[in-house]
Amino acid sequence: MNFDIAIIGGGPAGYTAAERAGANGLKAVLFEKKAIGGVCLNEGCIPTKTLLYSAKILDSIKNAPKYGISSDTPSFDLTKIMNRKDKTVKMLTSGVKMTVNSYGVTIVEKEAYIEGEKDGLIRISCDGEIYQVKYLLVCTGSDTVIPPILGLSDIKYWTSREALEIKELPESLVIIGGGVIGMEFASFFNSMGVKVSVVEMMPEILGAMDKETSAMLRSEYAKRGVTFYLNTKVVEVKPTGVVIEKGGKTSTIEAEKILLSVGRKANIANVGLDKLSVELHRNGVQVDEHLQTSHPRIYACGDITGYSLLAHTAIREAEVAINHILGIDDRMNYDCIPGVVYTNPEVAGVGKTEEELIKQGISYRVMKLPMVYSGRFVAENEHGTGICKLIQDEFGRIIGCHMLGNPASELIVIAGIAIQKGYTVEEFQKSVFPHPTVGEIYHEVLFS
Amino acid sequence: MNFDIAIIGGGPAGYTAAERAGANGLKAVLFEKKAIGGVCLNEGCIPTKTLLYSAKILDSIKNAPKYGISSDTPSFDLTKIMNRKDKTVKMLTSGVKMTVNSYGVTIVEKEAYIEGEKDGLIRISCDGEIYQVKYLLVCTGSDTVIPPILGLSDIKYWTSREALEIKELPESLVIIGGGVIGMEFASFFNSMGVKVSVVEMMPEILGAMDKETSAMLRSEYAKRGVTFYLNTKVVEVKPTGVVIEKGGKTSTIEAEKILLSVGRKANIANVGLDKLSVELHRNGVQVDEHLQTSHPRIYACGDITGYSLLAHTAIREAEVAINHILGIDDRMNYDCIPGVVYTNPEVAGVGKTEEELIKQGISYRVMKLPMVYSGRFVAENEHGTGICKLIQDEFGRIIGCHMLGNPASELIVIAGIAIQKGYTVEEFQKSVFPHPTVGEIYHEVLFS
Repeated sequence: MNFDIAIIGGGPAGYTAAERAGANGLKAVLFEKKAIGGVCLNEGCIPTKTLLYSAKILDSIKNAPKYGISSDTPSFDLTKIMNRKDKTVKMLTSGVKMTVNSYGVTIVEKEAYIEGEKDGLIRISCDGEIYQVKYLLVCTGSDTVIPPILGLSDIKYWTSREALEIKELPESLVIIGGGVIGMEFASFFNSMGVKVSVVEMMPEILGAMDKETSAMLRSEYAKRGVTFYLNTKVVEVKPTGVVIEKGGKTSTIEAEKILLSVGRKANIANVGLDKLSVELHRNGVQVDEHLQTSHPRIYACGDITGYSLLAHTAIREAEVAINHILGIDDRMNYDCIPGVVYTNPEVAGVGKTEEELIKQGISYRVMKLPMVYSGRFVAENEHGTGICKLIQDEFGRIIGCHMLGNPASELIVIAGIAIQKGYTVEEFQKSVFPHPTVGEIYHEVLFS
Repeated sequence: MNFDIAIIGGGPAGYTAAERAGANGLKAVLFEKKAIGGVCLNEGCIPTKTLLYSAKILDSIKNAPKYGISSDTPSFDLTKIMNRKDKTVKMLTSGVKMTVNSYGVTIVEKEAYIEGEKDGLIRISCDGEIYQVKYLLVCTGSDTVIPPILGLSDIKYWTSREALEIKELPESLVIIGGGVIGMEFASFFNSMGVKVSVVEMMPEILGAMDKETSAMLRSEYAKRGVTFYLNTKVVEVKPTGVVIEKGGKTSTIEAEKILLSVGRKANIANVGLDKLSVELHRNGVQVDEHLQTSHPRIYACGDITGYSLLAHTAIREAEVAINHILGIDDRMNYDCIPGVVYTNPEVAGVGKTEEELIKQGISYRVMKLPMVYSGRFVAENEHGTGICKLIQDEFGRIIGCHMLGNPASELIVIAGIAIQKGYTVEEFQKSVFPHPTVGEIYHEVLFS
C-alpha cells in the first residue's frame, strides 16, 4: 500500500502529526503497537492528573475549615478513584482516535518496522503488510530508565506505570528520583496518607527547574511529612527498603514499596532506524530545527529525540515537521516550552533559569514577588506560599519565568508567549489582566 | 501645600496612579474619603471572591464523591466565612496602603473637593487645608443605581454592599438584575442553600457578554435550582417579595430578601468638577485616549468615566494617564479588556462578541469547541460543561474570545494579549501550551 506519510507511534507527536497531515490532504497511516495516546494519555500525564485531582479535593476538604466550611474527616475509595482514572483515559483516547479518523488517516494498531527504501519510497512492514511511503515520521517515545541498582532485579518495585495501577495503598513508600514524576507521585501518595520518602542524587529536587521554587516546594512537602534525602545515592534495594549513601555514610530507609523514577530514555531500538542509517546522538535521534533527521524524508518528534521529553514539545514538534513537509515555513524554538510540576501547589517555569544564565555568563535582572501580591491568591489561599519570578535580559526582554502557586500550570504559557514574541518589560506591562486573578501577579512583578 | 499631582479617590485607579506617580518621582497626594482600595477591595471584587471561594469549596465537597472522595454533608459557619472575608480585605488594603506609602505618596483619608484654579495651579480643599497641584486625577468611582421601583423606599433591600455584610442567610432571595454582580451573588447564595430567583429585564442575563455562554451559564444555574425570569420587569416591591410583569401579565415572586443589582453610575457629583467646567457625557466624565478631560491638566480614570466599570480597566487607565503626564507615549485600548463572571463555572470574554459584529455588519468567522477537548478539563470536571469560542476577522486576526468553564478568569488574558498584539490564527497556533492544561483548549480551537 502507498501513502504520502507513515507515522510510527501514536502518542502526542504521532496523533498530532496524523491530524495535521490528514487535515492538509496528505494520505497518512499511523501505526501504534500498544495504545493510541501513548504514554501521555495512557500511563502518564492524563492518569496522573486525574489521580492528583482526587488528591487535591481530599486536601481541600482537610483545609476547608480555614474557609469556614467543615465536614467530617474525608475518606476515599481507591477503587473508585482508579476507575475514574481509567474512564477518563478511555474517554480521551477514544476522542483522539475519533479525531484522527475524522481526518481520513488510516490507523493500524500493530507494531511497525522500517524495512528499507526502494525506488525513492520508504518501506514499512507491519503485520505482514508492506507500506510504501514518501515521508516517515518516527515518534516511538521513551521508556523508564531502570538503573543498575544492587538487588533491583530481585524485588517487585514500581515504575510510574505500576504506580498507576495499584489496588491498595502501601503504608510507606520510597521514591527513588525526585524529578517531576517522582514529585507528582510524592504529592499524590502524601495526600492519600502514605508515609513518603524521596531520595535524590542531586543537591535539589526537580532537576533543571529553577532552584528557588524547587526548594520552596520541597520545604512545603517536608512540612506535610515527606522526608527528603538530597545528595543521596541508593546503593542497594531490599524487600524491606533501600540502602542509601550520603557523604560516605550508609543507612537504610524502611519502606513497604519502592517507586523508581530516575528518568526516561528514548525508544530508538526495534524500529529499524539503522536500516536507513538514521543518525543518532547519545540520548536519541539527531534532528534539526525542522525535526528532520539525517535522512531528508525521515522526521523524528517527541521523546525519541531525547531532548525535552514533554508532551507539548512533542505536539509542537509534530506541527513543525508536518509544516516542513508541506513546505510551510516553521521551525522549532525550545526557548518558550513551559515545564510544569502538578504538585499542590504547582510549580511551573519557562525560558532561562538563573542557574543556566550564571553558568553561561549571561547578565540578567530578576524581578520577583510573593504570590500574596495577587488579591485573588490571598482570597483563595489561606496560608498559601508562592512566588513569581521574571527574568529579563540586558535589553529588558523577558527571557525566563518561574512560579510556585496555583494555577501556575495555566499561567506559565503567558510568560511563554512573552518570551516567544520577545516582549520587553515595558510592552508586557501594557497587557490587561482581569482583576482579581492570580495572573495579575505578572503585572505586579513587571512594575516591581 | 504644593504637589505635582493630586489624586481624588483611592480605588484601583487612584492607588495605581499614586504608585506610578510616586515611582516616577512626582510629588503626589492621594485623597480617599472612606477606605483605601475603594469599592473593589472593600465591598466589591475582593470580598465577593473570598465568599465565592468558600462557596466553591462547599460545592466541591458536595461533588467529591464523583472523584472517589466522600465526606458527610458539609456544613458552614457564616460568621467564620464573613470574618475571613473581612480579614482578607484588611490584609489587602493594608498592603495597598503600604505600597503607596513606599513610593513616598502622601495619603489623606478625608473627602476632597476641587476649589478652582489660581496661577496655573489647581486648588483642592480637604479638611480645612488647601492643596495646590499642577495635575489632578479624579477617580471617585461609581455607586449602585437605585431605580425608581414602586415601594422600594418602604422596604429594607440589599445592594451588593449590604449583601456582603449579612449575619444570617435568608431562606429565599430575589435578585433584581441578572448582570455580572447579580449572577455572582446568585451563585454564592445558591451554593449556600438559599432559594434564589433572578429577574432580568433583557432577554438574556449578563448584559453585553456573549449570548451563547451566558445562556449556557443560565441553564447550568437553572439546573441547580435558580429560577430565572427573563424579559421581565419589576413593577413593585413589597416586604414579602416582588411584583413582576412579563408580556403584559403580572405575578408575584415571594421572597424573604431582595438584592438590587441593576447597574452602577459614575460618582460625578460633589467633587467640584463644575468649578473647572470639566466636560461630562451622559454617564460620566468625558476623556480622550490619554484619559485627559476637557481640562488639559485634569484626568479622569475608572468608573467615573462611565465607560467600562471594571477594576482592571481603571488600573490600566491610571497607568496611561500617568504615562501621559510623564510624557511617555501610551494610550488606552479598550479592545482587549477582559470581562469575567466569577460564577462556578466561570465565564470570561474579551474583544468583540458575535452580537456586536452582526450589529456592526462586520464579517467574521467563529471557531469553537466544547471544553472537553482539553484533557485536563476532563480530568478535573466530571460532567462539567464548558465552551471556548474564538472569533477571527476576515484577515485571520483574533478579535474576540468567549469562554465558559474554570479557570476561564485566568485564561482569558491570553486571548486578550492575542487581540492586543493583532495575532493571526496562524501565529497564535505556534504558542506552546503546557500539557495537560485547560488553556490547551485555545490550541485545539485554533486548529479546529
